[in-house]
Amino acid sequence: MGHQGSNYQAGRWTVDATSPKAFLGAELGLTGSELSLGFLARGTGNTFVHSHKRNEEVYIVVSGCGLMHVDGEEFALEAGSVVRVAGPGKRALKATDDADLVYYCVQADANSLKQATADDGVLEKHPTSWLPA
Amino acid sequence: MGHQGSNYQAGRWTVDATSPKAFLGAELGLTGSELSLGFLARGTGNTFVHSHKRNEEVYIVVSGCGLMHVDGEEFALEAGSVVRVAGPGKRALKATDDADLVYYCVQADANSLKQATADDGVLEKHPTSWLPA
Repeated sequence: MGHQGSNYQAGRWTVDATSPKAFLGAELGLTGSELSLGFLARGTGNTFVHSHKRNEEVYIVVSGCGLMHVDGEEFALEAGSVVRVAGPGKRALKATDDADLVYYCVQADANSLKQATADDGVLEKHPTSWLPA
Repeated sequence: MGHQGSNYQAGRWTVDATSPKAFLGAELGLTGSELSLGFLARGTGNTFVHSHKRNEEVYIVVSGCGLMHVDGEEFALEAGSVVRVAGPGKRALKATDDADLVYYCVQADANSLKQATADDGVLEKHPTSWLPA
């Protein structure tokens, strides 16, 4: 599925009521994070609460509306909502009654990031179809 | 902005032509990854190509259509496209002429993930508004 080269791997995944969860880490060859795509049908929620031993999670809502539970507190989710949950956080999600909820979840080892963006990026003199060499 | 507790931080961010990039790591208190939200107006692309010293990146397209360049190869992006790019990959994105492109980018230290999902998750006996204690 998709495209790949020595430095990249690409694809497109969708989730629905029949196939509500897709783990993309193995599909993409990820080594620094795990990424999953999740679907909760309107009016339904995760059937369990969980925490993590090592990993920090980031939930990214793509579409729909929902409710996020962490450690006894609950708040609304909508498209564009982003939530960091530390390992010990007791978490679960639910879709509201009027819309299915679709979201990505990133798992990464807590405190593993050494540097990012300007400190880690390198400008390359390299042509593309829209940039000169 | 948003909600926070001892184990979580939440918010909602949007990008547009006026404010085309939002780095969320500091906003969310991320320690295992950096997350950014990017916007490319229709017909425009990144004005530079870049690679990374340490970090693996994952691009997640939320809306619009575009073109992804890695190491001299180009392929189409659409909502739902997900692309892993290893550190050395020379990368840049462009929006097609007919739709603005909105995407998340996750940066994480390559090879830093120790375990995930079933190996890292812990089931918790904990009540929510939709689950019994």
